[in-house]
Amino acid sequence: MPGKARPSAEERLIARHFRPLAKHPGAFGLADDAAAIAPPSGCDLVLTTDGVIAGVHVFADDPPELIARKALRMNLSDLAAKGATPLGFLLALSLPAGTKKWWLAAFARGLGEDAKHYGCPLLGGDTDHTPGPAAVSIAAFGAVPRGKMVRRSTAKVGDAVLVTGTIGDAALGLELRRDPRLAKRWRLGDAEAAELVRRYRLPQPRNALAPTVLRYASAAIDISDGLAGDLDKLCRGSKVAAEIEVAQVPLSKPARAALTGEPKLMETVLTGGDDYEVALTVAPKKLAAFHRAAKAAGVPVTEIGQVRRGEGARFIQEGKALNFARPAYSHF
Amino acid sequence: MPGKARPSAEERLIARHFRPLAKHPGAFGLADDAAAIAPPSGCDLVLTTDGVIAGVHVFADDPPELIARKALRMNLSDLAAKGATPLGFLLALSLPAGTKKWWLAAFARGLGEDAKHYGCPLLGGDTDHTPGPAAVSIAAFGAVPRGKMVRRSTAKVGDAVLVTGTIGDAALGLELRRDPRLAKRWRLGDAEAAELVRRYRLPQPRNALAPTVLRYASAAIDISDGLAGDLDKLCRGSKVAAEIEVAQVPLSKPARAALTGEPKLMETVLTGGDDYEVALTVAPKKLAAFHRAAKAAGVPVTEIGQVRRGEGARFIQEGKALNFARPAYSHF
Repeated sequence: MPGKARPSAEERLIARHFRPLAKHPGAFGLADDAAAIAPPSGCDLVLTTDGVIAGVHVFADDPPELIARKALRMNLSDLAAKGATPLGFLLALSLPAGTKKWWLAAFARGLGEDAKHYGCPLLGGDTDHTPGPAAVSIAAFGAVPRGKMVRRSTAKVGDAVLVTGTIGDAALGLELRRDPRLAKRWRLGDAEAAELVRRYRLPQPRNALAPTVLRYASAAIDISDGLAGDLDKLCRGSKVAAEIEVAQVPLSKPARAALTGEPKLMETVLTGGDDYEVALTVAPKKLAAFHRAAKAAGVPVTEIGQVRRGEGARFIQEGKALNFARPAYSHF
Repeated sequence: MPGKARPSAEERLIARHFRPLAKHPGAFGLADDAAAIAPPSGCDLVLTTDGVIAGVHVFADDPPELIARKALRMNLSDLAAKGATPLGFLLALSLPAGTKKWWLAAFARGLGEDAKHYGCPLLGGDTDHTPGPAAVSIAAFGAVPRGKMVRRSTAKVGDAVLVTGTIGDAALGLELRRDPRLAKRWRLGDAEAAELVRRYRLPQPRNALAPTVLRYASAAIDISDGLAGDLDKLCRGSKVAAEIEVAQVPLSKPARAALTGEPKLMETVLTGGDDYEVALTVAPKKLAAFHRAAKAAGVPVTEIGQVRRGEGARFIQEGKALNFARPAYSHF
């Protein structure tokens, strides 16, 4: 028709791949400038942003559905650590020219599966071409009762330090993803090596524990840059020390096997990134109730140490404090 | 100290450049996993995300303070078109290795100035290195009374079509930025050419008009991909047509001068991107009150046409509908 624009390629891409995910009425089918959601009354909105760049946080040839799910789960993990219930997310996607339809379809499929599973709907987005690598930036929103977001900076001397799940699998998985020959050196079977790589590729954020964190934790942090570094952030924020018994740090069977073959991997386990577990502190009198609630939520939790007077996290192995060559993962 | 991590380079970068911007108490000094804000009661939260990539939406050698301000203003413009009052934003920043401190300092300074000016504080962020070009992704949040976000899809036959400010300056400015010799061909003086380039580099989002849009507009859209394409989106969303008198489209003095020298630039004016003005529709009976309110807000608005039965936006010049070779800016 004269003088009329047709839906652009960008609109078609969004309509084809992402509109099916945007079922929340406030997403307006991704056909408006913005989304609108009614925050639950009496709640604070918890806001976080995290993302992945191909070749930096994920491998460029990783399956696109896993790239999508990892990017969303990194944000879900932040919400879990803050005790927040997910409300939804915005997606900013930068794609190299020539990105294939199958790639986008798989990316959107993975994203949609997790959005549904975690009750965190796609609310809006922005899609661009980039001369750089594919990049996914997500901003996620959750809700907590007013003033109740679980902070990093509120741990108290005498609290127990706990972590969810197992620590270090993703860091070992990343090493194995970079150099599969390490499996042999670490004396891992194929299944064990594959399990560690899987943990690197697809974190299991602890949103099931969020209500328990909200109710019982005195402080909490998402473990994304390594237990040692993130616990240190919590300690510095709270102006306390933490004394961690390395022997208590929960390890998966494959991680234990790798450590048996190569004991110096303990530094990788404690300082490597991508765990997406929660580290938290709980007052002694709440500990029993916390353990019951965590069990009911189906999330394994382990006491690994105590909050002390002082500054920073200390990791004690056989009575001696460990020195780390590279204490935490940092992008800079 | 043994076994202790120090603040990482990433933490230092954030503390140095971005913490001074994060004065909102819910930003927790950018020292937690997430931000927390109390949404105003009785309001919906309006959510949008938009960003820039160096070499795509901005020139890599543009002043960093302008890159920052443009990225934020693109999002502010979306909020303005929806009638929303800004609440804050999250910043995802991807930087090439070797980004200089002066660049970051200037970027943060520009961002901070606009955050303050528009009452839209930095609430949180994510900073990464990228092997690609610098990229800025922003997610911005605003508030509207519950259920009142101004939509694209609610224009009514008989409504007037209006735009804020002037149209096409940024598109002409982009051409001049790419090829400064065009100024001579278009018979522009240095000041006129500089004014158009400035309009490209630094949009003037119409947040001052947001309460007026909220009160009087039947539908509205942020003009980011060209008036023709964006108005067409509004029409298709509303299942109506719009008949636009090209002679009524408001033009700046430099744009008028360029069009006198080169009349075929009208297509660039109507279909080029980066205006960041608001196109809106207003019912006839509200029009007088709308104009009074816009005048009180200090935002120039111009009637450019009417909503009709039919589908899509038609641009009429000297009685004939224009055909555009490239109807709208699209990243794909």
